[in-house]
Amino acid sequence: MDPLAAQVETTFTRTLEDLRRLVQIPSVAAQRRGIPEAAHAVRALLEAEGGRVTLLTDGGANPVVVGEFEGRAPRTLLFYNHYDVQPAEPLEEWTVPPFDVTRRDGLILGRGVSDNKGDFMTRIAALRALRAVHGGLPCRVKFVVEGEEEISSVHFGAVTRAHTDLLAADACIWEYGERDAAERMHVVCGMKGICYLELRAKTAAVDLHSSFGAVIEGAATRLTWALATFKDGGGRVLIPGHYDRVRRPTPEEDAAVAQIPPDVIEDVRERVGAGDPIGGVRGADAVRQLLFAPTCTICGLWGGYMLEGSKTVLPSTARAKIDFRLVPDQDPHEVARNVRRHLDAQGFRDIDVTVLGGEYPWRTNLADPFIALVRDVVKEATGRATVVYPTSAGTGPMHDLGPVLNIPLVSTGGGYWGSRAHAPDENVRERDFRETIVLMARLLERFAGAGH
Amino acid sequence: MDPLAAQVETTFTRTLEDLRRLVQIPSVAAQRRGIPEAAHAVRALLEAEGGRVTLLTDGGANPVVVGEFEGRAPRTLLFYNHYDVQPAEPLEEWTVPPFDVTRRDGLILGRGVSDNKGDFMTRIAALRALRAVHGGLPCRVKFVVEGEEEISSVHFGAVTRAHTDLLAADACIWEYGERDAAERMHVVCGMKGICYLELRAKTAAVDLHSSFGAVIEGAATRLTWALATFKDGGGRVLIPGHYDRVRRPTPEEDAAVAQIPPDVIEDVRERVGAGDPIGGVRGADAVRQLLFAPTCTICGLWGGYMLEGSKTVLPSTARAKIDFRLVPDQDPHEVARNVRRHLDAQGFRDIDVTVLGGEYPWRTNLADPFIALVRDVVKEATGRATVVYPTSAGTGPMHDLGPVLNIPLVSTGGGYWGSRAHAPDENVRERDFRETIVLMARLLERFAGAGH
Repeated sequence: MDPLAAQVETTFTRTLEDLRRLVQIPSVAAQRRGIPEAAHAVRALLEAEGGRVTLLTDGGANPVVVGEFEGRAPRTLLFYNHYDVQPAEPLEEWTVPPFDVTRRDGLILGRGVSDNKGDFMTRIAALRALRAVHGGLPCRVKFVVEGEEEISSVHFGAVTRAHTDLLAADACIWEYGERDAAERMHVVCGMKGICYLELRAKTAAVDLHSSFGAVIEGAATRLTWALATFKDGGGRVLIPGHYDRVRRPTPEEDAAVAQIPPDVIEDVRERVGAGDPIGGVRGADAVRQLLFAPTCTICGLWGGYMLEGSKTVLPSTARAKIDFRLVPDQDPHEVARNVRRHLDAQGFRDIDVTVLGGEYPWRTNLADPFIALVRDVVKEATGRATVVYPTSAGTGPMHDLGPVLNIPLVSTGGGYWGSRAHAPDENVRERDFRETIVLMARLLERFAGAGH
Repeated sequence: MDPLAAQVETTFTRTLEDLRRLVQIPSVAAQRRGIPEAAHAVRALLEAEGGRVTLLTDGGANPVVVGEFEGRAPRTLLFYNHYDVQPAEPLEEWTVPPFDVTRRDGLILGRGVSDNKGDFMTRIAALRALRAVHGGLPCRVKFVVEGEEEISSVHFGAVTRAHTDLLAADACIWEYGERDAAERMHVVCGMKGICYLELRAKTAAVDLHSSFGAVIEGAATRLTWALATFKDGGGRVLIPGHYDRVRRPTPEEDAAVAQIPPDVIEDVRERVGAGDPIGGVRGADAVRQLLFAPTCTICGLWGGYMLEGSKTVLPSTARAKIDFRLVPDQDPHEVARNVRRHLDAQGFRDIDVTVLGGEYPWRTNLADPFIALVRDVVKEATGRATVVYPTSAGTGPMHDLGPVLNIPLVSTGGGYWGSRAHAPDENVRERDFRETIVLMARLLERFAGAGH
């Protein structure tokens, strides 16, 4: 066995115990739980590997933990990760304790073992192995680990823009990775943006007996009417101005998408038993729609009586949580303003809109040599084929680092097709976890030698 | 003071203690709580006044408690009441314990003190006073007290149709009454029907990351789309066939509605701070709409993430509770079938429909002399003006007694404009409670002497 892989094995139990301690902190940003504790734990892990650590809280941010490590080569690779996690609800659907690490059937289960505490730990473990084998790191390394990724990185942009010198780097490895059902490794070069809104319909000061529904309209009905104006059955967002800034994909992006095996989407649809895709799209068209289409999704909806049996009540309040996924060059602030204007124009002035989060979309230039370097190292270190995604369908604050530091950002990491990010029984496979530690170490070695 | 009123005063503390024991039983039919205990308590109160009691459970009904009392005149007056109550949720909006009786500022507060345990107690107290003063009852009296009124009296019709001899009577005083903001007493001669449905949209086996919303539609969005096809902004139900059986009000019903002061609706709208009435109706048109229009109301709505902050999830399940209030001669079973057919036709085969309750509408013939008798007694016993309602805007199982026993049914009782039925801080005024006990006793006296 190669010395580095052997070293990863030697410390694997310690790595998992470090991961367990992280997962046991229920750092759910949406619920304001466990944030200082998780930031402190991240700091301690960085310092234990010899990093110089700074905590940044500009604008009231949950602490952004920055770690700086010296290395032999002068180039700097930046790792972006986050220590906050999604809520664990619905708790009854977990088969293991959500805030602990369980090993079962070759899997590691728990909230955050994939998204994103697990990935952070693979990177710490890579530094640990490199230092043990070589007595130091092959290049300079920085970490930027935030605590608001799952709530749209509300303050992250203010932090990065205020600390460009501290964060300066030559390239960035983004937070996560995915092995698809054919065991290919995705190499993701961009992210969608997001505009996350809460809508509240309020029709009266108190609930009434529902017999008054003949003359007084209820909040739940008003809300469904408003929401039904947001999108058509083909997935097209009906809010005026929503597509004004959408720019066409570049020829390189189009070409990359044409290379993505369309079974990715069919696999998910079959696995969850979903019906026909939106707009009936199949094959490459479905991939294009997943990656290049703006979306409008109702993530939550509630009002009135939600328990067993019947209660004849006219609800005075009803609420919805909506996420709009954005593509270049849509602007989350403009989307929120357009929604407000649309509601007013449709006669829904009685519906309040609160912005819970906004992020800009970003894509790395597909011609950047850093992308080719990452693909090469993945192939060498894991033997896996790679699939280049010009963008993820998901969201992350790449826009707060890419244009700010003027660096390419590429995502690869430890997840797989069944990782259930954001859902009950989130997990990674043990063999992927090991593989990813070695991959991260190899990336640092190759990156040190490149760019001369 | 007249001997009967004096007797009511003498036993008033005992009456309130009996009411407290009833209210302390949380007999929420929707939540299957406290039902046998409440039926037993009703039986005990009836037996304590000398009634012969039978419990009926045909078809699996919550026990329907029937009490029979001998009296001097051969005519029989039937009292209809119910011992089940609405859920107390939202608990945080109560200023008193919901399942207890609190006296405050001339009010009696607690779940059911108005709807309908309080009214039942006024009738028991009336018997008690009459027996104390006269040594017996002026006419024969029956009680039928059910335990499913708040869940659409699911089994009540099966019970009444199987026991017409036991229930046979000459007229029926219905469960409740209301004093409006001008202190007039409403005399209600009919009820709307209801069809109460639960809809469930199910789009996948598990929730997904909301980024898949670009190609897979979520359950919450599907549900809002379906619900938005049910009704237009003017309150008209858009489900094909919904109005096919609606019959025009009789000239007598039209004339009665024209006599109802329209401030009834404006008072409610102002008190709860509601916006413009549905369809912009005002005055007598608003009263007609309240009483004669079929309705479609979303009573509850839920799915996905409903807690603080943002969670980017594509919900696989979303649910709604809908009540349709029906007018003669709409049929609740047909309404449910029409909804199913409408959802199918609109492309919503993925939405399940469960019928949680159905009741037929019913109106007593406004020419029946029993209505005039009740109005006369109300005026004599309380000094109040009366307002005849050909129907309530609400629902009750009059159809399970009126056509089955071929008797007139008229509702009068102890509530007032601020009773907050079905809502937090349900209450009655102490002076109304006293007044209603005397009213019920006078009704029995006058009824005994009428009809010869």
